[in-house]
Amino acid sequence: MRAAVYRAGHFNAAHRLHNPDWDDAKNRAVFGKCNNPNYHGHNYNLEVGVFGDIDSATGYVYDLGELSGLIEEKVLNRFDHKNLNLDVEEFRHLNPTAENIVVVIYDLLRREIDRKYDLKIKLYETERNYVEYPT
Amino acid sequence: MRAAVYRAGHFNAAHRLHNPDWDDAKNRAVFGKCNNPNYHGHNYNLEVGVFGDIDSATGYVYDLGELSGLIEEKVLNRFDHKNLNLDVEEFRHLNPTAENIVVVIYDLLRREIDRKYDLKIKLYETERNYVEYPT
Amino acid sequence: MRAAVYRAGHFNAAHRLHNPDWDDAKNRAVFGKCNNPNYHGHNYNLEVGVFGDIDSATGYVYDLGELSGLIEEKVLNRFDHKNLNLDVEEFRHLNPTAENIVVVIYDLLRREIDRKYDLKIKLYETERNYVEYPT
Amino acid sequence: MRAAVYRAGHFNAAHRLHNPDWDDAKNRAVFGKCNNPNYHGHNYNLEVGVFGDIDSATGYVYDLGELSGLIEEKVLNRFDHKNLNLDVEEFRHLNPTAENIVVVIYDLLRREIDRKYDLKIKLYETERNYVEYPT
Amino acid sequence: MRAAVYRAGHFNAAHRLHNPDWDDAKNRAVFGKCNNPNYHGHNYNLEVGVFGDIDSATGYVYDLGELSGLIEEKVLNRFDHKNLNLDVEEFRHLNPTAENIVVVIYDLLRREIDRKYDLKIKLYETERNYVEYPT
Amino acid sequence: MRAAVYRAGHFNAAHRLHNPDWDDAKNRAVFGKCNNPNYHGHNYNLEVGVFGDIDSATGYVYDLGELSGLIEEKVLNRFDHKNLNLDVEEFRHLNPTAENIVVVIYDLLRREIDRKYDLKIKLYETERNYVEYPT
Repeated sequence: MRAAVYRAGHFNAAHRLHNPDWDDAKNRAVFGKCNNPNYHGHNYNLEVGVFGDIDSATGYVYDLGELSGLIEEKVLNRFDHKNLNLDVEEFRHLNPTAENIVVVIYDLLRREIDRKYDLKIKLYETERNYVEYPT
Repeated sequence: MRAAVYRAGHFNAAHRLHNPDWDDAKNRAVFGKCNNPNYHGHNYNLEVGVFGDIDSATGYVYDLGELSGLIEEKVLNRFDHKNLNLDVEEFRHLNPTAENIVVVIYDLLRREIDRKYDLKIKLYETERNYVEYPT
Repeated sequence: MRAAVYRAGHFNAAHRLHNPDWDDAKNRAVFGKCNNPNYHGHNYNLEVGVFGDIDSATGYVYDLGELSGLIEEKVLNRFDHKNLNLDVEEFRHLNPTAENIVVVIYDLLRREIDRKYDLKIKLYETERNYVEYPT
Repeated sequence: MRAAVYRAGHFNAAHRLHNPDWDDAKNRAVFGKCNNPNYHGHNYNLEVGVFGDIDSATGYVYDLGELSGLIEEKVLNRFDHKNLNLDVEEFRHLNPTAENIVVVIYDLLRREIDRKYDLKIKLYETERNYVEYPT
Repeated sequence: MRAAVYRAGHFNAAHRLHNPDWDDAKNRAVFGKCNNPNYHGHNYNLEVGVFGDIDSATGYVYDLGELSGLIEEKVLNRFDHKNLNLDVEEFRHLNPTAENIVVVIYDLLRREIDRKYDLKIKLYETERNYVEYPT
Repeated sequence: MRAAVYRAGHFNAAHRLHNPDWDDAKNRAVFGKCNNPNYHGHNYNLEVGVFGDIDSATGYVYDLGELSGLIEEKVLNRFDHKNLNLDVEEFRHLNPTAENIVVVIYDLLRREIDRKYDLKIKLYETERNYVEYPT
């Protein structure tokens, strides 16, 4: 019996969308107000899903306390109250769009969780925009 | 790297569920209070998902500003503050159930968005009822 | 020890904002798309607050089962899945703005609830608009 | 045209996570504060999804009034304001984790709904934890 | 310049409404399914408001980190994942209605916070029921 | 008949809490991770309440379209996708705590709205923190 369990987390961060290979005019044209050089920010709401069989001894797919600890240690401690562009190693050379953030979070957690489990990451950048990976 | 990006929109509309091939008694039996000939209404919450590869230059699957503009032009401008049965061409001969609304919205957006992207539409008719298409 | 207890309810209704003393041009200028003669609609979220002393025998300010029954009988049964302008007596000659709806709901419940309790009504017309009465 | 319709329901219940095959120390180590012998509780938010073709006569995948009635009769009446461990037959010998609850709900509804429809159950135990079955 | 700052917290608890001075029939008549002798439970959402002047050096009414710490130490640690009737001293002889819980929380926090600040407690027992104290 | 009407708005901004009269150690001690020199950010949810009599001709306390326009012009256009410390004149010499932001928003709107109406501003910095002014 295969089920998915999801655990939510939250981080508040500043970011700026920018491609250093483009000039300012093109950056403004593509990224609009998200290109503000002084940054803006969001309350990011994260959901991490783990897919696997329900263990008959525990009744769990995956211990949510353990999952919550991984999310805090690997993601929230590194992203929360940070400037994604300046403070987070993974975005030094990667544009911190919601799409790229969600792939980075997937990679950070994928290496911590046994391959017998599948993962799915959902990230709400605002109440109107969210991203899922993988699909 | 394939991801999905979702963008939300909202419209407030009146509607009535009714099948003109049936007599009043059968309509009332099947559609209950949703068959009120004077209409009732909802705050519809729409989510439009676009599935595709993350572009390496922008970090986007699809420009959400562009998607938001399409949603507004093709859906919200035509559905918001309208009577779906009387004011919206597509429902002149189609019962405006949540299921039919979501298929109409899919068709309106599908013709605007490159076929290399897949689409998924979610429509919340109330906080307790929602519909997804395609599955 | 005086506290307030709130109970929520929901109704889905069609309405149109219109002042019959004005011509069409003025109605459109003042009420905009809310003046659509074919109606539009909302999921109205209602909160009814009762203020009073905590009863030492029950630990209740007011029995919420009883309050819920009053809300259903006096408000929801008469407003839900209705056209407020056409189907609800109180709005035959009263414009069904959120402000007027909230006063009508207050009056409907005020006559049912002992005067030793104060009442407060909150009505969310959309996620972005709500009204309180009295203040 | 295949779509999914979802209907929400709510129940408030007490539970305790416990494996009778383990001693108290192991139960506390695995289930932590969820192992409290005096129970704790949750507001469970349930979503039941039915996947099927849109009927051309009704515009429905499945009558949500009928689905709502099934949810109330088969799930809410038996789980709401109950102690899952003590009052609900299915959990006499099954640990009431969210994963196991969601499978029990699936089984209760699966036998009531024609096999031409697929089902999906989502259960929110808190705002931070939820489960889906099947995947 | 006087403002109010609110901080939210959450606890999951079991409870039973019961008046030991009444016989079982009266308890069932008054408290209905909330009188279940095996308990039921809720996800309680708490909001603690502190009213005071904005400090010109910090820009704070009250340090929300400190308030959050008080809520955790004085309320959540004692109520979360507990049976309110059996595990929480204050409800040994007090019926744990939302009204009585909110007064107990007020008293627990009032003694920790300087009298120059006013306090207001809101407690959501479900998405449909909440309580405020004082009014 | 005096009622309150509320209109919501949203802005996404970066900020940093800092008092230039203090050294770095004291700033870190008081503001913690909110003092990050590279900024962090939030999705701010704003609610603007206008208190006044219900106009008998319109059924409105205040035209919410007009209120929405004022919020957009005077607040959102100046705060959204901005760095509050660097891009917004009012916070050049004022620490952008939620308390100070809410007072600034009050002042910006107070001068636009007739004194016969009272105003109340609520600002949600996160789902766990919000501020009201005046009280």
